[in-house]
Amino acid sequence: MELKENERIDDLQLNGLKIIQNEKWFCFGIDTVLLANFVKLKKEKATIVDLCTGNGIIPILLTEKTTAEKIYGVEIQKNVAELAKRNVEFNKLENKIEIIDRDLNNLKDIIQSGTIDAVTVNPPYKKKGSGIINESDTKTISRHEISCTLEDIVKESARELNFGGSLYMVHKTERLVDILTCMRKEKIEPKRIQFIHPRINEAPNLVLIEGIRSGRSFLKIEKPIYVYDEQGNYTQTIKQIYNL
Amino acid sequence: MELKENERIDDLQLNGLKIIQNEKWFCFGIDTVLLANFVKLKKEKATIVDLCTGNGIIPILLTEKTTAEKIYGVEIQKNVAELAKRNVEFNKLENKIEIIDRDLNNLKDIIQSGTIDAVTVNPPYKKKGSGIINESDTKTISRHEISCTLEDIVKESARELNFGGSLYMVHKTERLVDILTCMRKEKIEPKRIQFIHPRINEAPNLVLIEGIRSGRSFLKIEKPIYVYDEQGNYTQTIKQIYNL
Repeated sequence: MELKENERIDDLQLNGLKIIQNEKWFCFGIDTVLLANFVKLKKEKATIVDLCTGNGIIPILLTEKTTAEKIYGVEIQKNVAELAKRNVEFNKLENKIEIIDRDLNNLKDIIQSGTIDAVTVNPPYKKKGSGIINESDTKTISRHEISCTLEDIVKESARELNFGGSLYMVHKTERLVDILTCMRKEKIEPKRIQFIHPRINEAPNLVLIEGIRSGRSFLKIEKPIYVYDEQGNYTQTIKQIYNL
Repeated sequence: MELKENERIDDLQLNGLKIIQNEKWFCFGIDTVLLANFVKLKKEKATIVDLCTGNGIIPILLTEKTTAEKIYGVEIQKNVAELAKRNVEFNKLENKIEIIDRDLNNLKDIIQSGTIDAVTVNPPYKKKGSGIINESDTKTISRHEISCTLEDIVKESARELNFGGSLYMVHKTERLVDILTCMRKEKIEPKRIQFIHPRINEAPNLVLIEGIRSGRSFLKIEKPIYVYDEQGNYTQTIKQIYNL
């Protein structure tokens, strides 16, 4: 595999899986790994859609973390989608993963309504307008709601999911009210939440949310995940998730 | 002070304050104390309304925990409101606290719209219909949404609060989505959340929420409160709150 400028290969510590990342673009972090780990499929041969897939990291992780039969990765940025496709080939996962280079608001002819078992998404965290310097920059588009908003994502998820299908999202805690109200509005009932705290005595900064299409209202909050212990090392939970 | 059947006097460990409780009715717990502690008034001589006040414990605690000038306690149950009035007299707080024996849906002639700085509420936790044996039982009415629902409470709070005024609520975490969506619907923006965990590695079971009338959307989650340490003793945080 030949690397382009600013690219590097990372070993995912997961059955030989590797990923090419462009250091000038968005590189995956712990939020991505925690999201992949948060997915609990209800059927064996599920079909998953990963929105805002970036370099394809979530579909790639999900091939090991779940028994999914087919995973679509949707990415609006042409250069990033091209990298995702190379990552799929690099890992020889063409039979399981298909990268779709499209705006997620324009998927109706590719993904039929009500046919998907699970949607995953690590969306752009920041609201449009919050401190953006260059709207055409690849990294900026991955981080800010320029090409799609939270509403777009939840609405499209609601369209794709079958009855009882799940939307799995990771986001900043400051957007919690926006996410929960938006999900309920689109009839994806928030059923399971897990907060991620940097340390035990610190406020959570990230949140994992599972919403179920047409689910009845009852929320379960899981026990928290703490990332670092008091000595600044990864906690046992994080080590397990990372296979360390 | 003469006690009636099933009554006892508890010392609140707070500047000599005491409370008469009826052991057959609802007795206050840690949620009540944490709620009183969560209130942060923005002005010195504030007017507060405590909805579902029960035996008046929250208004009584707030006379010490805040600089409020006037606190109304609203209680629909005649026998419970009567006990609250005796508690106010017992603590010689008639100049600060006024108990209103009314349905909270019927307060317009007593509390003018848009005149209140803060509303506090420790509402009935359980949804109507969830395992109720006797709808007329005093304790049942305090615990289940029989006489008022979450929607009633948030709607009435929105009516009472002035622009920028705060609603402070404690509730079970399983109702979080209901609370946040309901607050936003009534234009009380959830701005501050604190979760209460029984122990460090356990899921939170209670949540404290501050919503601001006509506030702009931005949520802050505070660092968590853990009630017990690994030895089963109160944590330092709880000891401080209880003045132990």
